[in-house]
Amino acid sequence: MPQARRKICIVVTSRASYARIRSALDAIVSHPRLELQLVVAASAVLARYGSVVDCIRADGFHIDSQVYMVIEGENPVTSAKSTGLGLSDLATVFDQLRPDVVVSIADRYETLATSIAASYMNIPLAHIQGGEVTGSIDEKVRHANTKLADLHFVATRRARRFVIRMGEDPACVFRTGCPSIDLAAKVLRGATLDGGAARGVRGVGRPVDLTGDYLVVLQHPVTTQYDQARAQATETLRAMATLRMPVLWFWPNADAGSDGTSNAIRHYREGAHAEPMYFVKHVDSMKFLRLLLDSRAIVGNSSVAIREASFLGVPAVNLGERQRGRERGRNVIDVPHDRRAIVDAVRRQCDHGRYPPDRLYGEGDAGTQIADHLATAALTIDKQISYVDDRARVQRPARRRQAVLAGG
Amino acid sequence: MPQARRKICIVVTSRASYARIRSALDAIVSHPRLELQLVVAASAVLARYGSVVDCIRADGFHIDSQVYMVIEGENPVTSAKSTGLGLSDLATVFDQLRPDVVVSIADRYETLATSIAASYMNIPLAHIQGGEVTGSIDEKVRHANTKLADLHFVATRRARRFVIRMGEDPACVFRTGCPSIDLAAKVLRGATLDGGAARGVRGVGRPVDLTGDYLVVLQHPVTTQYDQARAQATETLRAMATLRMPVLWFWPNADAGSDGTSNAIRHYREGAHAEPMYFVKHVDSMKFLRLLLDSRAIVGNSSVAIREASFLGVPAVNLGERQRGRERGRNVIDVPHDRRAIVDAVRRQCDHGRYPPDRLYGEGDAGTQIADHLATAALTIDKQISYVDDRARVQRPARRRQAVLAGG
Amino acid sequence: MPQARRKICIVVTSRASYARIRSALDAIVSHPRLELQLVVAASAVLARYGSVVDCIRADGFHIDSQVYMVIEGENPVTSAKSTGLGLSDLATVFDQLRPDVVVSIADRYETLATSIAASYMNIPLAHIQGGEVTGSIDEKVRHANTKLADLHFVATRRARRFVIRMGEDPACVFRTGCPSIDLAAKVLRGATLDGGAARGVRGVGRPVDLTGDYLVVLQHPVTTQYDQARAQATETLRAMATLRMPVLWFWPNADAGSDGTSNAIRHYREGAHAEPMYFVKHVDSMKFLRLLLDSRAIVGNSSVAIREASFLGVPAVNLGERQRGRERGRNVIDVPHDRRAIVDAVRRQCDHGRYPPDRLYGEGDAGTQIADHLATAALTIDKQISYVDDRARVQRPARRRQAVLAGG
Amino acid sequence: MPQARRKICIVVTSRASYARIRSALDAIVSHPRLELQLVVAASAVLARYGSVVDCIRADGFHIDSQVYMVIEGENPVTSAKSTGLGLSDLATVFDQLRPDVVVSIADRYETLATSIAASYMNIPLAHIQGGEVTGSIDEKVRHANTKLADLHFVATRRARRFVIRMGEDPACVFRTGCPSIDLAAKVLRGATLDGGAARGVRGVGRPVDLTGDYLVVLQHPVTTQYDQARAQATETLRAMATLRMPVLWFWPNADAGSDGTSNAIRHYREGAHAEPMYFVKHVDSMKFLRLLLDSRAIVGNSSVAIREASFLGVPAVNLGERQRGRERGRNVIDVPHDRRAIVDAVRRQCDHGRYPPDRLYGEGDAGTQIADHLATAALTIDKQISYVDDRARVQRPARRRQAVLAGG
Repeated sequence: MPQARRKICIVVTSRASYARIRSALDAIVSHPRLELQLVVAASAVLARYGSVVDCIRADGFHIDSQVYMVIEGENPVTSAKSTGLGLSDLATVFDQLRPDVVVSIADRYETLATSIAASYMNIPLAHIQGGEVTGSIDEKVRHANTKLADLHFVATRRARRFVIRMGEDPACVFRTGCPSIDLAAKVLRGATLDGGAARGVRGVGRPVDLTGDYLVVLQHPVTTQYDQARAQATETLRAMATLRMPVLWFWPNADAGSDGTSNAIRHYREGAHAEPMYFVKHVDSMKFLRLLLDSRAIVGNSSVAIREASFLGVPAVNLGERQRGRERGRNVIDVPHDRRAIVDAVRRQCDHGRYPPDRLYGEGDAGTQIADHLATAALTIDKQISYVDDRARVQRPARRRQAVLAGG
Repeated sequence: MPQARRKICIVVTSRASYARIRSALDAIVSHPRLELQLVVAASAVLARYGSVVDCIRADGFHIDSQVYMVIEGENPVTSAKSTGLGLSDLATVFDQLRPDVVVSIADRYETLATSIAASYMNIPLAHIQGGEVTGSIDEKVRHANTKLADLHFVATRRARRFVIRMGEDPACVFRTGCPSIDLAAKVLRGATLDGGAARGVRGVGRPVDLTGDYLVVLQHPVTTQYDQARAQATETLRAMATLRMPVLWFWPNADAGSDGTSNAIRHYREGAHAEPMYFVKHVDSMKFLRLLLDSRAIVGNSSVAIREASFLGVPAVNLGERQRGRERGRNVIDVPHDRRAIVDAVRRQCDHGRYPPDRLYGEGDAGTQIADHLATAALTIDKQISYVDDRARVQRPARRRQAVLAGG
Repeated sequence: MPQARRKICIVVTSRASYARIRSALDAIVSHPRLELQLVVAASAVLARYGSVVDCIRADGFHIDSQVYMVIEGENPVTSAKSTGLGLSDLATVFDQLRPDVVVSIADRYETLATSIAASYMNIPLAHIQGGEVTGSIDEKVRHANTKLADLHFVATRRARRFVIRMGEDPACVFRTGCPSIDLAAKVLRGATLDGGAARGVRGVGRPVDLTGDYLVVLQHPVTTQYDQARAQATETLRAMATLRMPVLWFWPNADAGSDGTSNAIRHYREGAHAEPMYFVKHVDSMKFLRLLLDSRAIVGNSSVAIREASFLGVPAVNLGERQRGRERGRNVIDVPHDRRAIVDAVRRQCDHGRYPPDRLYGEGDAGTQIADHLATAALTIDKQISYVDDRARVQRPARRRQAVLAGG
Repeated sequence: MPQARRKICIVVTSRASYARIRSALDAIVSHPRLELQLVVAASAVLARYGSVVDCIRADGFHIDSQVYMVIEGENPVTSAKSTGLGLSDLATVFDQLRPDVVVSIADRYETLATSIAASYMNIPLAHIQGGEVTGSIDEKVRHANTKLADLHFVATRRARRFVIRMGEDPACVFRTGCPSIDLAAKVLRGATLDGGAARGVRGVGRPVDLTGDYLVVLQHPVTTQYDQARAQATETLRAMATLRMPVLWFWPNADAGSDGTSNAIRHYREGAHAEPMYFVKHVDSMKFLRLLLDSRAIVGNSSVAIREASFLGVPAVNLGERQRGRERGRNVIDVPHDRRAIVDAVRRQCDHGRYPPDRLYGEGDAGTQIADHLATAALTIDKQISYVDDRARVQRPARRRQAVLAGG
């Protein structure tokens, strides 16, 4: 008798989370013992954030459900309310899809909606990219996700150690690398940017010659300091003006405070500047990575500068506290949100040039590994913190864990 | 210039959570540097669960906001949806009250609504009763609360060690004991049950003579096995019938699956039984503790049997997996949901009689300690996992933590 | 080329709304040009209200979606919040089902969730039982439903006149009769109550001999006076005690204030009464109608006393304001919530005995008629109030109505 | 003993609804027997729609509560979901504020959230601007609001007749005129546009000389045809290009489909055009009316062209179906969304020049009248359709209406 395929439900909530799962989606779809259920939610269904849902469809994936859950306001109150709405609606979705495993990705605020809906509905939960360390609310969200999850697919060796130190069962924590590295590996294997790719990048401002030297900027507002977002963006804009290099600037995502960053950019665009600066709102992940690979350096506070750029060997200037604590390769220089410090660091990185590739965040096969583990791991929901502590008297557990569905 | 008092917002979501915070409420109200903001939510506002909100008012507390958030259905889907609704509504409430600290209590499913609303709104979050270990969904909820919280008030020394091992800053983890023990201490200092207290207990079934021997039963359904709730309750009912002792049975709370337990009880009541068995739905915490103190033993799967009963020295028979992993004193015998095992254990406990008081869960001054820490602790929201790991290269943080409001 | 069948989505939200649509469901399922999409929501999915969803499945209907939307509290605040939640969730459901027509039934508070979701999503909306006149919030809900609906299936000739006077296009208002009369017609064609049916009625209290004389009571709380619900129920209970006739009392539904009625009943049951009184919570509609047919009279404030009972010729005593304004046949005597008035009226009705059947609310073929109209009516969403008013200058409309989907 | 002032809770949900109530707010604040409770919700709290909430504060009003309820997506699904969220949250707000009357304004989709929350919570509801006739979903929303409301403040004599024909009690329907006319009257009494006002209008594009000739354009997407919004906007843009007159174009509001209009405008701006065209997103209502007064004509589909412009005597060219059925003065020429028809009509209107003022929509004292009625009207919630119909037998009502709070 043939065994039923496990239904793996993945909730994609933003462009970034799609980039961080895309190679795993491919691997799941082509795995003989898995069936993909794809839910697209939050900013990923919105035109204002580039209709990621359309990209996903264009990439050939069938979408099982779309969830509108972003309450307008882009402030801390609406972050909380949006998560509440998403939690309510995802419960309805999971009730209809009845997946065997739900997968929650990384650490954006709305990921807790996915994780809580699955946990409360007794569906085994897998979490991608736990165990990393950063600043901001992401830090809390990421580790709360870890404590709700039953399976963990982490990017680095340290991340695995940290997840285990938080009390997770080592048998359930897999160091697969980050699926976003799989895309970088694909780009690295491919050719440099062709004309077609360049033409496909739409934005505003003075277009940059992509066959020459240019910088990439990607700067997010920091939610716990969201009123400072504008000042921080302005500092970067001024540093770019001083550097007199062409700049490809990628617009921030839908976090609270993005208005601050956007306003700074809008204000800047009204002034007159010597060098071309081109502002791009949404771009396909693969295309972005190709543009990154050909750039002189990346500047900003995105994890891309640390994660994908280290694998690609692109020099990075990381700004401020947002990535504080995240492991980094040799390609990163950390500076505060200060115009002069940014200028100095970018110059040093341009002098240095390309770094050797770093395997810190994965070997480029994370997607396949994740699919294999999802197909074979024992699925359980009844975990317990696994600290040994001889000083306390506790009930000897009859069984450490209840098998919900035995793999293999 | 006089300093503004810190506004401490406490969200009470059930009868149990009120019992676990009541002494702290008293201490906060009478603290010169604190101001209490009291939000009553979830089952605590519902008549079906005994209108805890009325008890709170009768105890003299002013209620700032009531939140209706329980979506009917009592199943895993509605647990998730209710939490989503609560999250959305609590965000609105916190936006109006603008507290300096929010306090989330223990590990019921809806507590994550409180914790997420506060975290996402950049309000420092204190969590009560982290670091304990149990079975069921509570385990996940409790530790997720810990990873969202900035201050931790834990009951036992082991709980403090565990919270720190999960990556929390030791300077923010306070072993205050559990405030529920404060009530037990008060009861222990007082007289035995007077006639007035006995008369105040309303229920159904054949009333028990409270001046004689009787057992207390308190049995909750286990959410991850909610279809087994009825079978488990039936096993306990049969054990009681075999024991032929008067029984004071306290009705389960509003978890998914409570219908299973309720149905078993209703079915039992239609049969004929030799000894009096009295089913009580809602009772004031103090009164309950007095009844517990005078009982021969407590049977069931409530944490009361482990926590308050150990302090009171009341023998306890703990059933099944729900309290698996929770630290326990000498007063507890663990048995499976099996009629014979229950009967044997109860008999052994009755033979043994009262145990010496155990300070495992606190000394009886948790409320005062919590109020003092809330008044003086440095309030921060920008925490980071505090593991030392020399093998990884990370950004050297400019400051470990940003002070939101400096204490004292 | 065969034409696609129209997808008719019907939202059932309570036991009563199921009874009022059941014969139409049958007719839709067996209609060659219609496809039924069945959504069960609100109290109809809850065990506490008799799991109507299970009855519907047992009757052989496939359920496309279940919606949990009742927020506990049973008060005016939660009525509003539940409707809001239902509106949000039904929008998601309609987005998935993509029906050609949505059908909203009668006038319970949650029906506006159905009607708004459909209207705002540009789905043609049909409303059942518009144009009737009653007291209470139902009055507002019913007519608001009418103003949102594009097609109207009304029960009486007066209802049709009234819907048209409210500005609806006469071509869209069909007097089909009420589908609940179809069930009554079926019962009337059948035999009197057999033993099997009697045995199937489960309740509490002293069982009534269903082969002898008995009264049926069905009394709902009135939402705009919900604190008076208990007093009104008590008055009826006392009247029954005075009458010394066996009583079959059917429990109220899930409106705000039902606790008042329930408490009165619970309190009464603790006293001692001469005649048998049996309290029934949930009963199948067909069985209920058979019991009604065999009773001496029906007492209360349900529309059943006016609607189905007039067709069956069962004498009715209608209490208070709840049915104020509703058309009635000769079988009804109206009295206030006053013990003596109730007693007198019941005695008069028992003396009078059975009335001749009245076709006021339909001929018994409403379900078939509704299905036929749903299959053939022109479907539009762009209606406009159709008053002629020569005194005002308005734009001459290019077209009176835009055909969304041409029938036939 | 002094009488308590009636608490009048007004829910403002957009810039337009603020303009339509502003003079009433003034009158309520200064009325000795009224107390204003102001709730600002939906697009009125969002920066993206010009932070109306800040304008309201700048005008000196105290805001009691802000409600975030707009779910991103700008499509029919999110219109429904946003209304559901708003309904849930407004219920919480009303529960805290406990108003004596709630006021719902006009016919935007989210107004039903206000009306349902108030009705279901047994709070007397007043509705502004009922009885008018238009196309689109507004038509359904407006009349549904009427059927939920207890008091009606209408703009025109025909509107009063229509509200009464829909079954409302004539004693509760007051023809006060529209408060938006009060602002127009104020502007008419004042001077023409001074330099200060002109400088305060911020937008994008080539600025228009406001001392010379210019046209005003204000064009909304039509929700039931939201995919056509772009085509319709393009037609108007081309007509403007043909006319070669300076244009002041006001951006559409937050309806479903506004992206279509916005995209057309953005696309147009990238082309090159002879005459200055200036696109303004948000402007204070008073300033807008001054700009309108000084313009040669207004073009578009806004009710402003019909309502305020008729009072001001400004020639108007009304496009398409959106205002179909609304009463209009002599200042309006109706044309389809066709470039040539638009060009012709604008030329005819420019040739004609200013019209004499028309009192169709009010005399300019609506705010004061509304405040006076709110202070003195008998407040009831238990209305019933008031048709006389001798052909039917109904219960003779004991009292036509229950006084909740007697005025005076």
